[in-house]
Amino acid sequence: MALKTAEEYKQSLRKMRPNVHKFGQVIEDVTTHPATRSTVEGHAQIYALQKDPEYQDMVTTASHLTGDRISRYLSIIENVDDMVANCRMKRLMFNLTGTCTGGRCVGWTCINAMWATTHDMDKELGTDYHERLKKWLLEAQKKDIAISGALTDPKGDRTKSASQQDDPDMNLHLMDKRDDGIVVKGAKVMICGVAASNEIFILPGAGYKEPEGDWAIAFVIPRDTEGLTIVETRRPSDTREEEEGFDIPVKKGGITQAYLFFENVFIPKERVFMCGEYKYSLAAVLNFIMAYRTAIGACVAGQGDVKVGAAMLMARANGLASKVFSDKLTRMVINNETTFGMGIAAATLGRKHPSGVWQPNPLLANVNKVHVATLPYENSVLAQDIAGGIGETGCMPSWVDFEDEKYGYLVKKYLKAKSSAEARTRAARLIEWLTIGAGVPGCMHGGGSPDGAKLVIRLHAKLEDKAELARKLAGIEEEMPEPEKKKR
Amino acid sequence: MALKTAEEYKQSLRKMRPNVHKFGQVIEDVTTHPATRSTVEGHAQIYALQKDPEYQDMVTTASHLTGDRISRYLSIIENVDDMVANCRMKRLMFNLTGTCTGGRCVGWTCINAMWATTHDMDKELGTDYHERLKKWLLEAQKKDIAISGALTDPKGDRTKSASQQDDPDMNLHLMDKRDDGIVVKGAKVMICGVAASNEIFILPGAGYKEPEGDWAIAFVIPRDTEGLTIVETRRPSDTREEEEGFDIPVKKGGITQAYLFFENVFIPKERVFMCGEYKYSLAAVLNFIMAYRTAIGACVAGQGDVKVGAAMLMARANGLASKVFSDKLTRMVINNETTFGMGIAAATLGRKHPSGVWQPNPLLANVNKVHVATLPYENSVLAQDIAGGIGETGCMPSWVDFEDEKYGYLVKKYLKAKSSAEARTRAARLIEWLTIGAGVPGCMHGGGSPDGAKLVIRLHAKLEDKAELARKLAGIEEEMPEPEKKKR
Amino acid sequence: MALKTAEEYKQSLRKMRPNVHKFGQVIEDVTTHPATRSTVEGHAQIYALQKDPEYQDMVTTASHLTGDRISRYLSIIENVDDMVANCRMKRLMFNLTGTCTGGRCVGWTCINAMWATTHDMDKELGTDYHERLKKWLLEAQKKDIAISGALTDPKGDRTKSASQQDDPDMNLHLMDKRDDGIVVKGAKVMICGVAASNEIFILPGAGYKEPEGDWAIAFVIPRDTEGLTIVETRRPSDTREEEEGFDIPVKKGGITQAYLFFENVFIPKERVFMCGEYKYSLAAVLNFIMAYRTAIGACVAGQGDVKVGAAMLMARANGLASKVFSDKLTRMVINNETTFGMGIAAATLGRKHPSGVWQPNPLLANVNKVHVATLPYENSVLAQDIAGGIGETGCMPSWVDFEDEKYGYLVKKYLKAKSSAEARTRAARLIEWLTIGAGVPGCMHGGGSPDGAKLVIRLHAKLEDKAELARKLAGIEEEMPEPEKKKR
Amino acid sequence: MALKTAEEYKQSLRKMRPNVHKFGQVIEDVTTHPATRSTVEGHAQIYALQKDPEYQDMVTTASHLTGDRISRYLSIIENVDDMVANCRMKRLMFNLTGTCTGGRCVGWTCINAMWATTHDMDKELGTDYHERLKKWLLEAQKKDIAISGALTDPKGDRTKSASQQDDPDMNLHLMDKRDDGIVVKGAKVMICGVAASNEIFILPGAGYKEPEGDWAIAFVIPRDTEGLTIVETRRPSDTREEEEGFDIPVKKGGITQAYLFFENVFIPKERVFMCGEYKYSLAAVLNFIMAYRTAIGACVAGQGDVKVGAAMLMARANGLASKVFSDKLTRMVINNETTFGMGIAAATLGRKHPSGVWQPNPLLANVNKVHVATLPYENSVLAQDIAGGIGETGCMPSWVDFEDEKYGYLVKKYLKAKSSAEARTRAARLIEWLTIGAGVPGCMHGGGSPDGAKLVIRLHAKLEDKAELARKLAGIEEEMPEPEKKKR
Repeated sequence: MALKTAEEYKQSLRKMRPNVHKFGQVIEDVTTHPATRSTVEGHAQIYALQKDPEYQDMVTTASHLTGDRISRYLSIIENVDDMVANCRMKRLMFNLTGTCTGGRCVGWTCINAMWATTHDMDKELGTDYHERLKKWLLEAQKKDIAISGALTDPKGDRTKSASQQDDPDMNLHLMDKRDDGIVVKGAKVMICGVAASNEIFILPGAGYKEPEGDWAIAFVIPRDTEGLTIVETRRPSDTREEEEGFDIPVKKGGITQAYLFFENVFIPKERVFMCGEYKYSLAAVLNFIMAYRTAIGACVAGQGDVKVGAAMLMARANGLASKVFSDKLTRMVINNETTFGMGIAAATLGRKHPSGVWQPNPLLANVNKVHVATLPYENSVLAQDIAGGIGETGCMPSWVDFEDEKYGYLVKKYLKAKSSAEARTRAARLIEWLTIGAGVPGCMHGGGSPDGAKLVIRLHAKLEDKAELARKLAGIEEEMPEPEKKKR
Repeated sequence: MALKTAEEYKQSLRKMRPNVHKFGQVIEDVTTHPATRSTVEGHAQIYALQKDPEYQDMVTTASHLTGDRISRYLSIIENVDDMVANCRMKRLMFNLTGTCTGGRCVGWTCINAMWATTHDMDKELGTDYHERLKKWLLEAQKKDIAISGALTDPKGDRTKSASQQDDPDMNLHLMDKRDDGIVVKGAKVMICGVAASNEIFILPGAGYKEPEGDWAIAFVIPRDTEGLTIVETRRPSDTREEEEGFDIPVKKGGITQAYLFFENVFIPKERVFMCGEYKYSLAAVLNFIMAYRTAIGACVAGQGDVKVGAAMLMARANGLASKVFSDKLTRMVINNETTFGMGIAAATLGRKHPSGVWQPNPLLANVNKVHVATLPYENSVLAQDIAGGIGETGCMPSWVDFEDEKYGYLVKKYLKAKSSAEARTRAARLIEWLTIGAGVPGCMHGGGSPDGAKLVIRLHAKLEDKAELARKLAGIEEEMPEPEKKKR
Repeated sequence: MALKTAEEYKQSLRKMRPNVHKFGQVIEDVTTHPATRSTVEGHAQIYALQKDPEYQDMVTTASHLTGDRISRYLSIIENVDDMVANCRMKRLMFNLTGTCTGGRCVGWTCINAMWATTHDMDKELGTDYHERLKKWLLEAQKKDIAISGALTDPKGDRTKSASQQDDPDMNLHLMDKRDDGIVVKGAKVMICGVAASNEIFILPGAGYKEPEGDWAIAFVIPRDTEGLTIVETRRPSDTREEEEGFDIPVKKGGITQAYLFFENVFIPKERVFMCGEYKYSLAAVLNFIMAYRTAIGACVAGQGDVKVGAAMLMARANGLASKVFSDKLTRMVINNETTFGMGIAAATLGRKHPSGVWQPNPLLANVNKVHVATLPYENSVLAQDIAGGIGETGCMPSWVDFEDEKYGYLVKKYLKAKSSAEARTRAARLIEWLTIGAGVPGCMHGGGSPDGAKLVIRLHAKLEDKAELARKLAGIEEEMPEPEKKKR
Repeated sequence: MALKTAEEYKQSLRKMRPNVHKFGQVIEDVTTHPATRSTVEGHAQIYALQKDPEYQDMVTTASHLTGDRISRYLSIIENVDDMVANCRMKRLMFNLTGTCTGGRCVGWTCINAMWATTHDMDKELGTDYHERLKKWLLEAQKKDIAISGALTDPKGDRTKSASQQDDPDMNLHLMDKRDDGIVVKGAKVMICGVAASNEIFILPGAGYKEPEGDWAIAFVIPRDTEGLTIVETRRPSDTREEEEGFDIPVKKGGITQAYLFFENVFIPKERVFMCGEYKYSLAAVLNFIMAYRTAIGACVAGQGDVKVGAAMLMARANGLASKVFSDKLTRMVINNETTFGMGIAAATLGRKHPSGVWQPNPLLANVNKVHVATLPYENSVLAQDIAGGIGETGCMPSWVDFEDEKYGYLVKKYLKAKSSAEARTRAARLIEWLTIGAGVPGCMHGGGSPDGAKLVIRLHAKLEDKAELARKLAGIEEEMPEPEKKKR
């Protein structure tokens, strides 16, 4: 089967069992329902680009399994170039949708993380997970499906491990192991883009220890699997998506983040890629975050590009040359290129895993995650600074008031500046949407928290080597070990 | 008449002509309509505190005109203590409402700015503006009214002055001068708290030059004056205010920001405090911003206190001691005390204007404004950092889903951590409301832009003196003047 | 006796026993020796200002004991105005000397700290320390002496308390208690300005507990007391002070920091203000740091003024208008006014101690200390940024080369830009001196470390109150206490 | 001839004519004179590594001209791997010397910049510069010489171009063109490492326009060429290098920065690579800075590694586990990896110049330069923060006092903490040397100023594209061009 068109992709979504809910109601058709259509439109753009001569090389590649042209989101990342292409594609998608198309990139990263992890498991444990994954992937490539990914468990009391929780369901876990598959219970929360996906790739949410064998599970399921209930979260200004007009000015992009409730869901054996091998759960997660934190810098750079552009539009709408804000715009560009560049660096200094997957440098990838958790905020502040009060909190009458019969003419008269009232309003609403509205992605904790990244940084920082460097350089002959732990 | 109670205050609002609109409809009763009731409740707390033994000294003072106990918001600020009390009261109000009660403090600052400006005008020009203002103020104190204030004009093309605009209405201006008063046309935009106020104090929005005599006008009007149409802006997540439940968890506080359209509005003579004296328009604005930028640091500190508390609650809800986030909480405290403290410093190093008004130090007040435009953002980022993904973008199902008959039990089961699901959700929604929701005030441009503040800083920085200090210290004997402007 | 002149002050130093050393040699005359003359000149300016009509009100005040005009450095700080004057005077002294005149302000702060502490001790313990201190102070005021102050002990292993150290001398302590006085042993390190002082005020370096009674001592001694050996530290580029020319361009200011070795030094009873009362050692230190950290922001602001000026001179020397660097200069001004202003705020929100001493607000004072540990560095970076490569590391040939017979003409030819070679070189050397040379004071740890300040901030931050505010605002009814400490 | 040993390298320096001066004297032997021996030792380490099995692959490579193994500093950078190796080697050299070995990397970058520039000139103008350069390079590789590089002219009045200066010598320029070569006059200033080099590569310092043909010159000369007078600058604490002991603790590394005075120096034709082709002077400079600003991030990362290590040593010397400073050390690591990583990214996203040179991405390279001008300062502040007062300004008695017969035992007694007095002192002096002493390189303006980098960033930032992205995303149909320049 060939690469899908945008329309074929939407068709595939329409055929699925409705199990996504919001505001107490089931969403019958995710492609038209106001709560999900924007994100579906965002994801549909990826399919459209597959047929677009200008972009198809960026969003498709050759399958290393069949040689066929496939979506890059379904490919194995084999070298620096692939990883750089990952970054570029993500930046492009944020450029074109203004926000996150998380219904594909997380799933993609899960595939790659498990490609390496199952390879190691099979080799060391004699399991056949890698072969299962390969079969499933061949099919996925053939059907050109959209696959989201899910890691985050509800977790309950953060000071307790999965097996210590009062309620074992606080982390998704095995309920039953049968000949033909497994039964699982629990939840995954804050999961991006499931409404726009055909399948969901599930990874264990943490590195589990021996008592947590039942929690060490990985698998992939159709989004509309029996027993899976999905509830979408409500995000800033999300009800505007249900309205007419341009109070949300972006129509071809949007975010959804869902809670996935698994009530004794059955997963067929051939879709299970880890089941009890707790020792590999940490590797699965690390293999995921290395790649994810490499590319996430390109995401926020891509949105940062739009913030730069939106700020320029606001300045112009007010009659001001963007040169007036030259320093601020330059600072925004620096921030964007820093998160983008650090990903490129992590890709470049990676290494080849025996399974064939290219794994980025963990130190640089995690340094990038820390930047991703701070620099986009600075860019939002700068964009609001340039935009003026009107952009800061979207401080304008609503579209309904803009078009009001009685006083709409006044709203328009006074919103006009150098540009038309509509252009100025749309630009201001774009700033609002990007910085304090429905377009803000979870860049602080998406792909894990910055504090978690700092732990990995310390792990890879080789601090002791640096102390040795300094000791030799200073001509100190005595040993200077870390003081023993003091007892109080 | 005595100090009003909260209920009397609301009664006074209910008696007014409905001229506030939102979403294409007029708001019949601002005290009950979902778009305005929260901000009215916030302002009503001020009246309630007037009767509260714990707080009455903070929110009331003795009138310097009559000696009667009056609302501090209707007082003339006569010394350092008054200005410090101003800061403390603003911090308190943000503590109690979580956000801005802008329907009183801007008006208060306008009164004080014009107290000084009219004094100078009368002395130098022989006008009687000061006396008019005094009479009006006596009445205002007697009636204990809430007075908002308005400075910002639509401004049109920012590179053109008021008189150069294609449309003269881009800045509020005089249309007609009659024996009994004046007629004005134009608009004031992004005006805080008018829905919660009885009257509105209008200041010229800029320092006008000779051709802009018609724009140099100041006056005070009842909010429901004939010819004045008010349209409320739509802010982030504002439609949640129309819903049941706790998706907006704060009920006793809220913001409104309005566009005020003046269609040939008549202002009686005794309410006019400037009319054509363009030379005094800059002084009016500067007298305003000195005081306003002094106290605004206390506002953001007050909201910052709530951010600190909300972040602590989120940590605890997750089972974590706030000690885990000690460094981040300390940084937030430092930020809060910095904006609060700089205001205290500006107050302390002020001077007495001949009219009796205490005027804060302009250099320090404007340095504070720059901090106010940056540090609250850092606090929001830190609060989101501590709160985890759930707080960052309010990433939870809606209250409707929380209470849903079919799957609400699942939502509750998985939102529970150390605290109950409801407590955790409310805390997370509070973080969202404070950092990316309806509770975010316009701290970047409120009270003027940081770039504007920097201009004033340079004006007062005595840079040449500093160059001289350095020259003498370095033993340089030759003069080192600023290079003459180069011609290319 | 009247206020001393600069010359009388220097005379008083010359009369003292030489016990200050550097580079293996005793300094016979601190007023002429290259290692100490600059700092003496700096301190002498204070005496000169006492006679200068323009400045005398800033550097002198009326004794609250006698009503006589005395040096402000020997006064008791009784109210906000006194504390503000403290800040202003410190800023002035940094303006005039380019750096720290630490031989007076630490001692002054010690006097005030012990004024309050001895008052409390006498009241609660029935001792007569306060009376002793008053007698000594009367004499000090009469003789108009310069008094430095010393707190920092060598401390040895930082994880052990004074009484746990292998060597008890690691913190200055009591060796013997006699009828007529006490004998002490140990050291005080990194003490500023002792070379320029007549006496030294010694405070305990930490809050001591019961086993550390012998370490809880406070007293004042002539700098040339028997048994006290003083060794000056070597600071960046200090040997330049021994050279001719302008490689150090500042002649009327300089720093010394000394190690004070006490080898069984006898202190007469009437000069002892604490001896064994360990419970008051923390109060003594806190009373010190509150005042010290209030005013230290003015110090760095004063040096920051000079950095601003020096950067302007460098720009002009290169032919550039300082307007080119407008944003950077404004940022520097903001930093200066922030540390200055936070001190004013701490002063304003202080309280009167029963002894009559005005004690600044501890929260704001410590917030200021954190700023003092960061903002001056930012100013140095900005000054270097504006100055160009030549200022960054003082990248010019030496004065000897500048004046060299063979090639000095080439050095001069190519150092000339818009200004003369000498003016440009002096300005560049001033930048070097201020940012990476002998003029850099210890603003990171002077007055204690920023981490120590953060501890005090947390102590005074009322975090629990803030959590309560947030809980009520969010409508959370359940209690949300701090989680109990987890046992692993 | 084979790769030189460290000793052979020093021999080669000893054979040269003494034309380097400092403090009014000529330096007879740069390998032993205290003003230059440290930097020579630093550079000698490179030669030593060439024979070291562990490092030889990092510091040598195959000549693309001959296939012979050559110093990497004499190689043409042909691909990403070469550029990454450049970065790694620089980081290594800062690790091993604690500072800059600028006598090789600038020259190397000049070679590569002119390799591309001469290729283009020859192709477009029919000159034979590229062939000349190739011949010279073959010889340089054969002799394994150390080559420094020089760009910065004195520049005079910064608002005037080279041809407008009152004195034409303010920028190095052509005096005479002869059949066998050219004669030049002027100076190059602040040039790193010439004392440790055999030859110096000269590039034009700026992009010249038509009237500046005589200034558009590039060539390479032996360091001891007739007519060239070199005067070393004096740097912070440089006289310590002339002393015994450990007040400068680093012996195998050091910086020199020189002023080069050209008094009618003759350059043989075959060593001239540009002469009058002003149109190519900008390309020469840009080709230089792209590569230089790519790798300079690795330099500061390498020094940053030592700062991390030195801070850890200080903590341990004081008895504290480095874990106490975990957050600060992590921040330092993040800063280091950011400047290192951005260089790797610039290398990766480069392109191949037709001459065979790999040219890094100019946008990312210049973003890196901005980070290089700020992050190392933050690391210095953090290192001082961790180190305590003793490290901040090197606040200890001198080595002479440490060893003093009379009181040295006291100095040692009280400098001892957890480590020996000597180890603690050496560690503290290392902090001083790295952050405020002779080891501080010119990272603000080295490789050009951050403001210059920002100009290049804006040039490559494609701002207009970003405005277009935003316009389309917001559904704005009208054009929103940059406002025309306003005339006042």
